[in-house]
Amino acid sequence: MNSAQPYCGVIGLGSMGLGMARSLLRAGLPVWGHDVREDVTAQFAEQTGQPLRPLAEQAARSDLLFIVVVNADQASEVLFGEQGIGKHLRPGSVVLLCATVAASRAREIAARLAEQDVQMLDAPISGGAQRAAMGGLTIMASGPDSAFAAAEAGLDAVAAKVYRLGDQAGQGSQIKLVNQLLAGVHIAAAAEAMAYGIRQGCDAQALFEVISHSAGNSWMFENRVPHLLAGDYSPRSAVNIFVKDLGLVLDSAQQDVFPLPLTATAHQMFKQASASGFGREDDIAVAKIFPGIDLPSHRAEG
Amino acid sequence: MNSAQPYCGVIGLGSMGLGMARSLLRAGLPVWGHDVREDVTAQFAEQTGQPLRPLAEQAARSDLLFIVVVNADQASEVLFGEQGIGKHLRPGSVVLLCATVAASRAREIAARLAEQDVQMLDAPISGGAQRAAMGGLTIMASGPDSAFAAAEAGLDAVAAKVYRLGDQAGQGSQIKLVNQLLAGVHIAAAAEAMAYGIRQGCDAQALFEVISHSAGNSWMFENRVPHLLAGDYSPRSAVNIFVKDLGLVLDSAQQDVFPLPLTATAHQMFKQASASGFGREDDIAVAKIFPGIDLPSHRAEG
Repeated sequence: MNSAQPYCGVIGLGSMGLGMARSLLRAGLPVWGHDVREDVTAQFAEQTGQPLRPLAEQAARSDLLFIVVVNADQASEVLFGEQGIGKHLRPGSVVLLCATVAASRAREIAARLAEQDVQMLDAPISGGAQRAAMGGLTIMASGPDSAFAAAEAGLDAVAAKVYRLGDQAGQGSQIKLVNQLLAGVHIAAAAEAMAYGIRQGCDAQALFEVISHSAGNSWMFENRVPHLLAGDYSPRSAVNIFVKDLGLVLDSAQQDVFPLPLTATAHQMFKQASASGFGREDDIAVAKIFPGIDLPSHRAEG
Repeated sequence: MNSAQPYCGVIGLGSMGLGMARSLLRAGLPVWGHDVREDVTAQFAEQTGQPLRPLAEQAARSDLLFIVVVNADQASEVLFGEQGIGKHLRPGSVVLLCATVAASRAREIAARLAEQDVQMLDAPISGGAQRAAMGGLTIMASGPDSAFAAAEAGLDAVAAKVYRLGDQAGQGSQIKLVNQLLAGVHIAAAAEAMAYGIRQGCDAQALFEVISHSAGNSWMFENRVPHLLAGDYSPRSAVNIFVKDLGLVLDSAQQDVFPLPLTATAHQMFKQASASGFGREDDIAVAKIFPGIDLPSHRAEG
């Protein structure tokens, strides 16, 4: 092991973590993976020809540990729970916290790791499963310079763009939350606009064509509305992700009693969609909460 | 006068109408202009060397008449009010209704013009004053093929892109309203996101840099947030425009009792900004409704 070939672990082999692990391997780095689903852990070891060692032993050997779980509670459990690996990590190793979490939780986890001389990069990711698999993520990162230096080969392998947003944990997560606020509001707005246009008799395809070339466009409108036009709600990212992420945004603002009227409204819309049974569908399924309209139906594969 | 050189009138010489009139002149078309402000009308005639004739006479000579007023009531007054010019228009001439109006009002105006064999293009415009002056507007147009043919030289002169959205009045206006729904919600969302980020301690410039390259981006975020960062609220498009346009969207949905939760929330935000005295400021001044934060202050010209 040397600084050019850090031994990497990826905890959480969902679509994002698995893609990142594969990007690390493709860059020539040695990688182990772990998931709460034991069969997924075993399968990854087998497919990649990596040894399947006990988790505590893997943690103790690692230079870089990517934590790609769903939320701060899962990250805390992985590190500091009863079976937590935090106590096995070597001084000088670097944890990259890639989950979307409140800034306060990122600071809290970094402080606990620092007690045993483990560094942390607050490193939330953006870009989706496809870009994770291509090594094309955007990372909104903050942490000490020495941690950035130690993690360089790993960051280069998984990300097309790494924003360095300061030397404190929390700075990355906070900007990620602002991004999630807008992403969630824009998906809900895309759904509302398409539902309104369809109700008023517009041709849905023409609507998409005009708006996506006009001042009403957003990254999310352009990316998600084609799913709606195809009647395809297979989840690239699910409704429930925004139930969670807009909830995080609102919780953080609640501490300061800061009003977020659009975020609160969009959150209600995602919750209505989830409670209606669409929580695991693609996030643009939030359009299904609008009554009395016919959304485009699924086109059979040709 | 021939079809290649239609005699053009522009009614409403605000920043959009004036820019369009200049684009028509630059394309070599004869143009007269009219505004409720008599000095503006006279100044335009003087600057362009066009004769200053009575309005009724100008109307009677015109092949194409661009109506670039603020709303449907003003357009109706211009055409059918006591001093209305509708009765002077020649059969075969074409009115281009460029205001943002409810689809029902566009249909109503087209029907009244048709009674005297005047054709109408429902032709709302998008792009702002700068693109109006460059001949670079987007037009979301609907109407009969014969009207498109007669208006071709005029449309080419003012627009970079003309969407043909059907042969009925109302089809253009309806898609424009969907665009305005998204434009308004996205401006309010940009304001909310920046206010939240600033409250949470993010660097405003870094926030803009990251978000404008991430999934949270929108056309409006990218276009309007630089005004906020510069502390420059001189109006390119004012808060009150969205008080009006989101009101139009909500009114049209009210007829069908169709829910538009984000539109209604954004409308309240623009009304709060307007009632607080910011109605004539740039629309991103909606950020001023968020309490307890310091928005970037105005940078002195260097």
